[in-house]
Amino acid sequence: MLYNPSNKSTPNIVIILMDDMGWGDLGVFGQPSKETPNLDTMAAQGMLFPNFYTANPLCSPSRASLLTGRLPVRNGFYTTNAHARNAYTPQEIVGGISKDEILLPQVLKKKGYVNKIIGKWHLGHRAHHLPLEHGFDEWFGAPNCHFGPYNSSDRPNVPVYNNSQMVGRYYEEFGIDKKTGESNLTQIYLEEGLDFIFHQNMAQRPFFLYWAADATHAPVYASKRFLGKSQRGRYGDAVMELDYSVGQMLAWLRALGIDKDTFVFFTSDNGAAVMSGPKQSGSNGPFLCGKETTFEGGMREPAIAWWPGHIPAGTVSQQLGTVMDLFSTSLSLAGLSVPDDRLIDGLDLSPVLHNNTLINRPIFYYRGNEMMAVRVGPYKAHYWTWSNSWEEFNQGINFCPGQEVAGVTTHTQQEHTMQPLIFHLGRDPGEKYPISAGTKEYQDVLSRITAVVEKHKKGLVPGVPQLNMCDMAVMNWAPPGCEKLGKCLKAPKSQPWKCDWPH
Amino acid sequence: MLYNPSNKSTPNIVIILMDDMGWGDLGVFGQPSKETPNLDTMAAQGMLFPNFYTANPLCSPSRASLLTGRLPVRNGFYTTNAHARNAYTPQEIVGGISKDEILLPQVLKKKGYVNKIIGKWHLGHRAHHLPLEHGFDEWFGAPNCHFGPYNSSDRPNVPVYNNSQMVGRYYEEFGIDKKTGESNLTQIYLEEGLDFIFHQNMAQRPFFLYWAADATHAPVYASKRFLGKSQRGRYGDAVMELDYSVGQMLAWLRALGIDKDTFVFFTSDNGAAVMSGPKQSGSNGPFLCGKETTFEGGMREPAIAWWPGHIPAGTVSQQLGTVMDLFSTSLSLAGLSVPDDRLIDGLDLSPVLHNNTLINRPIFYYRGNEMMAVRVGPYKAHYWTWSNSWEEFNQGINFCPGQEVAGVTTHTQQEHTMQPLIFHLGRDPGEKYPISAGTKEYQDVLSRITAVVEKHKKGLVPGVPQLNMCDMAVMNWAPPGCEKLGKCLKAPKSQPWKCDWPH
Ligand SMILES: [Ca+2]
Ligand SMILES: [Ca+2]
Repeated sequence: MLYNPSNKSTPNIVIILMDDMGWGDLGVFGQPSKETPNLDTMAAQGMLFPNFYTANPLCSPSRASLLTGRLPVRNGFYTTNAHARNAYTPQEIVGGISKDEILLPQVLKKKGYVNKIIGKWHLGHRAHHLPLEHGFDEWFGAPNCHFGPYNSSDRPNVPVYNNSQMVGRYYEEFGIDKKTGESNLTQIYLEEGLDFIFHQNMAQRPFFLYWAADATHAPVYASKRFLGKSQRGRYGDAVMELDYSVGQMLAWLRALGIDKDTFVFFTSDNGAAVMSGPKQSGSNGPFLCGKETTFEGGMREPAIAWWPGHIPAGTVSQQLGTVMDLFSTSLSLAGLSVPDDRLIDGLDLSPVLHNNTLINRPIFYYRGNEMMAVRVGPYKAHYWTWSNSWEEFNQGINFCPGQEVAGVTTHTQQEHTMQPLIFHLGRDPGEKYPISAGTKEYQDVLSRITAVVEKHKKGLVPGVPQLNMCDMAVMNWAPPGCEKLGKCLKAPKSQPWKCDWPH
Repeated sequence: MLYNPSNKSTPNIVIILMDDMGWGDLGVFGQPSKETPNLDTMAAQGMLFPNFYTANPLCSPSRASLLTGRLPVRNGFYTTNAHARNAYTPQEIVGGISKDEILLPQVLKKKGYVNKIIGKWHLGHRAHHLPLEHGFDEWFGAPNCHFGPYNSSDRPNVPVYNNSQMVGRYYEEFGIDKKTGESNLTQIYLEEGLDFIFHQNMAQRPFFLYWAADATHAPVYASKRFLGKSQRGRYGDAVMELDYSVGQMLAWLRALGIDKDTFVFFTSDNGAAVMSGPKQSGSNGPFLCGKETTFEGGMREPAIAWWPGHIPAGTVSQQLGTVMDLFSTSLSLAGLSVPDDRLIDGLDLSPVLHNNTLINRPIFYYRGNEMMAVRVGPYKAHYWTWSNSWEEFNQGINFCPGQEVAGVTTHTQQEHTMQPLIFHLGRDPGEKYPISAGTKEYQDVLSRITAVVEKHKKGLVPGVPQLNMCDMAVMNWAPPGCEKLGKCLKAPKSQPWKCDWPH
C-alpha cells in the first residue's frame, strides 16, 4: 500500500504506555464524553487496533512482557504461591526482572539506539533490577506505583529517580495531593520526553522512548490546569492531561521534522480498574469486568500506531495484537532480529502496519501461571473463570461492578477444562452469552481451539517465578543517591515470607 | 466559525433514521468490530453528537416526536391504559397520528419542498393516518413493522406502499427469509432514495427525504451480498448494508454537486433491543439496558450531522439534543418558523451546527405519560425506575441482560419522586453508582433539577391519547390498491378492546 521506505533505516521508536487506562476511555473507542481529541486525531492519522491485548491484567507482568516480548509465565513475572493469582512488584517484593531476560532496549543498542524510560518501571526496585541495568541509558521516574503517603518508619515513600540516582520521593519532593488530586508529575514526564527527543535529534542518534506515565492509576492525579476540566471527574482530568501530552509529543516530532522517521505506538498496560469506582477509574467500553481479570475488560487495550508516510492514515486493523508484539515489531523496524535462543511470543506486526494484512495467531489470557482463556479468531474459550474471592467480594471489592453474569463472573475459581465456556467476541463482545455446548458451532470451534492450546502447552517452559518472596527489608529505604539528599532510611531486619497475592 | 451561507436559501434535508440501532453500533461510537466505515467517515466530515436522545424508547412515539417536534405526551403517542407503559402502532391499533398535529413536511411545503418518506412510517395504518395525508408527497415503504409471516386469516401480512397504493405485502411480494435472514428491502430503499434525490435535483426543487430503513429491527435482515460478512452475525450484516447505503447516498449527493446544499442527519429511533440477544440486536455501548427502558441504553442514540461547507468537519458537539430538534432545526435551516400555536419541545440546533455553541436544555425521559427521568447538564434524576415486570423477566425476557444494578434495574415500578436516584452521566455513563442522597452534590443537583421539572410539569397539556384502543377489524386487510393486485382480505367484525401494553 503506502510503504515509502524511510531514508533512515533505523526509525525512532516511541512507546506510550498508559497505566490502568481502559479500552473505552478514548473518544475513538467510544467514550461518550469524547475528551481525547489528540488521541482521536492520532488514530485518524494512523492505524487503530480494536483487538489489541495485554499479556496480563496487572501492571508488572504486562510491562515485563512488553519489554521482553514474552508471556509472564516465560519471563518469570508470576507466582506459584497460589493458583491463578496475579502478582506484581510492590515495595516488599524480593524479585524483579531477571538478568537472563533480554529487554527491547538491550537489542536496540546493537544499532546505536539511545534508550530512555520515563515514568513507571515496575520490574523490581532493587539495584540489579533497575532500568539502567537492563538496557536503558536514561530514566526519569519511579520503580513502583505512587501509593502513599507512608510514614517512613513502617514503609518508605517511593523514590523518584533521575537515571541511577534518586532525586526525591513521592509525597515529599514530588507532591501528590490526594485530597485535591493535584500533581505535576505528568507535566514533568512530558517535559522530560520533549527534552529527550530534542537532544537525540540534535545528536542525530536513533532513539527509543518508553513513556510510561501513571496518572490514570489510583490515586489518579492531574496538574492544576486540568483539574475539574473533565465531564468524567478526576479520572477524566488525568486522561485529558495525558491526551494533551500525547498531542504535544506528536506535534514536537512534526515540528522537528522527524515525524516520518518515528514510529509511535500508544496503548495501556491493563484494563480499567473498575473496582475503584467511577471517579478513580476508567471505562472498558462494552467489555466485561476489568483489571485483575481475564475477561475482555481486563485484557483488551486501546491501541494506536502512528508513523506518517509509512502507516496508512485512518485505517483500522482487525489484527489480534499484544503488547509483546511491540518487542518484535520494534526490532523488525530497526532491522534487528529477535533473540533466537528462546521462545518469543511477540509477533512482527510490520506487514500489518504497512499493508494492513492479517496474521492468524491466538491470544492467551493468563493469571499467574494458569492459562485462563484463549482467543482464536473471533472465539474465546475460558478454561478457568474467576473474578475475585467471595471474601473480598463480600467486603465490597467488586471487579465486575454492575456486570455479574451468572456462571461467568464467578467468585470461586471455576474449572471448565473439560467443557470450556466459549464466546463469539464479534457478536458478543461483552462475554454474556456462552455458546451452547450442544451446538455444531461449539464443537467445531472447540476442536480448532484445542489444537492451538495443545501446541502452546507442549512448547511451554515456565521461567523461574520471580514474584514469590516478599521482605520488608528490601523496600526503598536507602536508594542510591539518598545520602546526598539526606533521605536515607533505616531498613528493618530481613524477614522474608511467601507473598500473599489475593487476586 | 465556518458558516458559508449557501446560495440556496432552502437546503435539501435528509433525515436518515435507523430502527433499534444502538449508540454503540458505530465504529465512531466504540463498536469493537469497527464495521461502519461510511458512517465513521460521515462523522469525520461532519459533527458527532454523543449526547443525542430519542423522545421515547419505542418506535412509534419516537417517530411521531421526530416529525412533530413534540413529546409523545403532547402529540398523543401514548396510552393511559396502564401506568408508565410504552405503546406503539401494531396492526390492531385503532389510532395514529392526529390531524391536529403539524408534521415537518407540512411546514416545509410552504417553501416548496418535495417530501418523501422511504421505509417505515409507524404512525398508524388506517387511511387517514398514512403519510400522504400528513404532508408527504411520496412514500415507498410500510406502515408497520416487518413482523410475520402471517396466515392471512388471523392476521394479514403488512402491506408495502408505493405512494397511496399498496404494491404487495411483506413475506409475499417483498420477501424476508427468516431462516437465512435474506431480504432485498434495504437495497430497494436505497434505490428509491437515490432516484428521489436525482429527480428532485433535475427539477431543481428543494427536497426533504426521510429515509427510515428497518433492517436492524428484529427479524433483522440483509441482502445476499452482505449476509455472513460481519463479525457480529446477522445484526452486523444489516448494519454493514445500512452503512453502505448511507455511504452511497452521501457519494450521490457529492456526485450531483449538491452536497453543500444538503443537510443530512443520521440517528436512530430508540436504543438497541438487547432483549433479543446478540444475533438479533445491537449494542448500546457503555449504557445501561436498552429499548423499552428509560435508562441511557434505551434513549441515547448515535447521531451525526453532515453538511459540507456549513458544518465544520471532524467536530464533536456536547449539546444535549433530541429527535424533536430535527423538526425545529430543519425548519430553521429552511427559513421557516415552528408553529406558534402549540408548545414545541424541539430546539433549533443551527447555532450548534454552525458554531458548536452549547445551549442549556433538559432532556425528559418518558414512558407512556409518566416522566420517568430528567437530565440536566451531566446529571440524570430517575423519578421512576422499571425495566420490565417480574412475570416477563421470569419468562426469560430481560431488558438489561448481564446488567442488573440493584435498586436501579427494578422489576416492579419503583417510585422515587420523594428522593430521585441521581447519576452523573459524565463519570458514570452506565448509571451504576447513584449519588448518595446525603451529599451536598446530591442536594445541589436536586434543587436545580426540581426547578426544571416543576416548570415542565406546569406547562404540560397532555394530548388526547391515541394508543388506547385496539381492534382486529382495523388491520391491513384491504389497503388501497389491493383490488388491482387481487390481494384484498376480509376483515373480521369490529370488536374494539383496550390495548394491553406489557412494557
Ligand atoms: Ca496498570
Ligand atoms: Ca425502533
